[in-house]
Amino acid sequence: MITGNIIGYETLESQNHLSGVNPLTQSDLDGAFSIATQVEIDLALEKAVLAFPVYRKWPGTKRADFMDLIAQYILELGDELVIRAMAETGLAEARILSERGRTTGQLKMFANAVRQTTWEEPSIDLAQPDRQPLPKADIRKHLVPLGPVVVFTASNFPLAYSTAGGDVASALATGCPVIVKAHESHPGTNALVAEAVQRAAKDSGAPDGVFSTLYGYGPELGQALVKDPRVKAIGFTGSYGAGRAIMNAAALRPEPIPVYAEMGSLNPVLITKSALDNKAVMIGEQLGASMTMGAGQFCTKPGLLMVEKSDHFDHFYQALEAKIRTVAPTPMLNARIHSNFMRSLSQLSQELGLVDLNEDGSHLIKPAIAIVSGDEFINHAQWHHEVFGPFAIIIKCNGADQMVTILELLKGQLTTTIWSEPYDPGNDILIEAMEQVSGRIVWNGVPTGVEVCDSMMHGGPFPATSHPHFGAVGFSSLKRWTRPVAYQNFPGQYLPGSLKR
Amino acid sequence: MITGNIIGYETLESQNHLSGVNPLTQSDLDGAFSIATQVEIDLALEKAVLAFPVYRKWPGTKRADFMDLIAQYILELGDELVIRAMAETGLAEARILSERGRTTGQLKMFANAVRQTTWEEPSIDLAQPDRQPLPKADIRKHLVPLGPVVVFTASNFPLAYSTAGGDVASALATGCPVIVKAHESHPGTNALVAEAVQRAAKDSGAPDGVFSTLYGYGPELGQALVKDPRVKAIGFTGSYGAGRAIMNAAALRPEPIPVYAEMGSLNPVLITKSALDNKAVMIGEQLGASMTMGAGQFCTKPGLLMVEKSDHFDHFYQALEAKIRTVAPTPMLNARIHSNFMRSLSQLSQELGLVDLNEDGSHLIKPAIAIVSGDEFINHAQWHHEVFGPFAIIIKCNGADQMVTILELLKGQLTTTIWSEPYDPGNDILIEAMEQVSGRIVWNGVPTGVEVCDSMMHGGPFPATSHPHFGAVGFSSLKRWTRPVAYQNFPGQYLPGSLKR
Repeated sequence: MITGNIIGYETLESQNHLSGVNPLTQSDLDGAFSIATQVEIDLALEKAVLAFPVYRKWPGTKRADFMDLIAQYILELGDELVIRAMAETGLAEARILSERGRTTGQLKMFANAVRQTTWEEPSIDLAQPDRQPLPKADIRKHLVPLGPVVVFTASNFPLAYSTAGGDVASALATGCPVIVKAHESHPGTNALVAEAVQRAAKDSGAPDGVFSTLYGYGPELGQALVKDPRVKAIGFTGSYGAGRAIMNAAALRPEPIPVYAEMGSLNPVLITKSALDNKAVMIGEQLGASMTMGAGQFCTKPGLLMVEKSDHFDHFYQALEAKIRTVAPTPMLNARIHSNFMRSLSQLSQELGLVDLNEDGSHLIKPAIAIVSGDEFINHAQWHHEVFGPFAIIIKCNGADQMVTILELLKGQLTTTIWSEPYDPGNDILIEAMEQVSGRIVWNGVPTGVEVCDSMMHGGPFPATSHPHFGAVGFSSLKRWTRPVAYQNFPGQYLPGSLKR
Repeated sequence: MITGNIIGYETLESQNHLSGVNPLTQSDLDGAFSIATQVEIDLALEKAVLAFPVYRKWPGTKRADFMDLIAQYILELGDELVIRAMAETGLAEARILSERGRTTGQLKMFANAVRQTTWEEPSIDLAQPDRQPLPKADIRKHLVPLGPVVVFTASNFPLAYSTAGGDVASALATGCPVIVKAHESHPGTNALVAEAVQRAAKDSGAPDGVFSTLYGYGPELGQALVKDPRVKAIGFTGSYGAGRAIMNAAALRPEPIPVYAEMGSLNPVLITKSALDNKAVMIGEQLGASMTMGAGQFCTKPGLLMVEKSDHFDHFYQALEAKIRTVAPTPMLNARIHSNFMRSLSQLSQELGLVDLNEDGSHLIKPAIAIVSGDEFINHAQWHHEVFGPFAIIIKCNGADQMVTILELLKGQLTTTIWSEPYDPGNDILIEAMEQVSGRIVWNGVPTGVEVCDSMMHGGPFPATSHPHFGAVGFSSLKRWTRPVAYQNFPGQYLPGSLKR
């Protein structure tokens, strides 16, 4: 395993190091990974700047072959990758395998997208030389890549939103070189995947510097990268605090750059009386499974469950509680996430007195729930923030109007969900409020499980994401790394392929 | 003429006032326009917030009819509007008439766009209940409006980028209420157009508050609007300083919001030896006309003319100089723009010693040009900024490589232009560099005259515009006021029209 910073085709060791930690045992894993200094940062950026004009001119088919090769080499890592990712994250084998499948699937999806030119959104307005009062010029437009991109990787997706994950794959697909800030929670997983990317780049004849990865921490390495004038866009998946620090630094640069940050969500679920009256047990079971999946460490975990008054509430609650009691205690992704979760529960416990405290002294945690009234929730702003982990607040609301009031109080969300029957008269105002606060709205289902398809929107009003127009999943996520360029009256020989005709 | 702040269907007078000034005579025009206080700001925003849920649900056809009515009522203002706009801007009648045509044309274009649903980018992925290993949900996506939008109007487009101009029309078309910060240079023009919009809103049965306009200055009114949590997006056309102040304030809000600012451009023109050898006189004449059109007060005015060495340089220069000498002295748009222009010329004159000084003591100005070498230009960063007005620097470059060096030194541009012959070997590196720094590239033409069509891109890397993915002209400018929402497994009765099938 390479433990240095992988900078194009070079590996640079440095003085200080960080290690992977097994969250189950809290013991260090093997490998001392070099913390990048300004020397490594400069080299990675300089190489990316030099690689860009070459790489952006590669035909889409050549970038696609490169990405297919990355997918192949990731699979060829075999058990070594799976075992290391499990050890660094505490996630189960099945989850790591499914994430690896998603990662290679994304690489191939973006590869296939850029084999065609549709993703460039080519648009052609032919000249009208005889138009009165003025002739019309020939104008054609398509999307071009922005330049070197920095990707901050996600703790909760060690493969699918990390070293060769969605942000990296979409940026590489458009023609942008990428510098990955490795997540300090899974440096070994990063090293293995990065080596696969480096090998694919070499075997594809890609310019030195099309891909680099650096180790370090947000306040030092992260801020240095965000502020560097050679960086032209940022991708980020993580906490609100870290995301906002990146947004602010990027906005105040001499040249502000786009930041595409995904920063968490409460994913409110609205459960109407008509739904409880008809399927209370099913709703409880499905939400119990959804909120505890992956130890509740998904950006789409349902964290607020608003219920209308119904005689069937107890059936719902009992089914939910029974479901979460079946969940085996699990470690969280890392020590910081673990202690944040325990601190949140402890505080809520003092305030509410009814939360399972998880205080068995091990590094394992169990799911927890709390129940409050709508009025109580409205009056406690400290409960309006995401608790990352297997926890949800059940809010007993006195009607659809109060649910709307609560949705309007909350900030932007990735998702909102409604459980209802089509005849319920409250649906209209609830659905309208859901549209207003979130990027995806779900009918009679769970928000976890993000389908990767053209119509998916994985983003939403701030702070779910930094810019409400862009999402991080699927085909449309390519747009984030591009801008349009119009060509006026250019001879065919100078037009890009997608604009010739 | 209404001189109060037009707030939905109300008019509010306040204590302090501002007046329009005739830039030719520097005398006040009639009408004392009320400077908005926090009372008027709050009322306009509260009304916009209440209007939004009603207006966004209007069918596109109804919004389209409203916008057609605005266009009709603007035309019905007749000579009163033309005379007032001429008096407040010093622009000629022909220009005001053509701008009025563009304004009504834009309103009708956006109206026609939202009569269909294509602009919503509807996308439908049907369910695959039998898919293995997991069924696929029904996912559908379209664009929805963001909410109340604030538009800062442009000094140089009193109609087409002002009260009912491109930003306002595109925002109204998507379903966003708009609050217009009237430009202090043309309050009377604003009042007349705003009255037409108000009348069209009333006659269309639009909710009170779908449109308001307030008078005041950037540091007070502008900042108050940008920082208000009820505002969800900003449109701006103007100077770098004002645009950057808005960008920073919006980025540092508790809830940052998108700012779509267009902040000026040098619009470099590259003239190769092959072009000079073949058509030096034509190039000089066309660029002379382009840089002086509208007293050089266009965002696409060519401000840097880079020329390769050629025996025909003198023919080019003489044709250019002869052309700009034919331009009659004209007033600039307002006193501030006039004094900024004179100060820039005076400073350049001290540095260069060869600029026409325009010191006849009147409020009229004449075009001016300067000539420097490529090396001199590179070493004088103070010349790398836009001079707003009929001025251009001719840079004698020692080859295509130096032109590329200069393009890379400059910041983002709306346009770059190349004059060349197809056989010129330098074209490739020049065109590539042009793509890298600008949103539109022009072959053997002039950058002024922005065609309004689907393929137009009127935007570019910072500081040409605040976000490189969006442009302010044409169909695609609608996107700025929207975000995607995905619907998962929703019954047909709750799907928006564009997503039913």
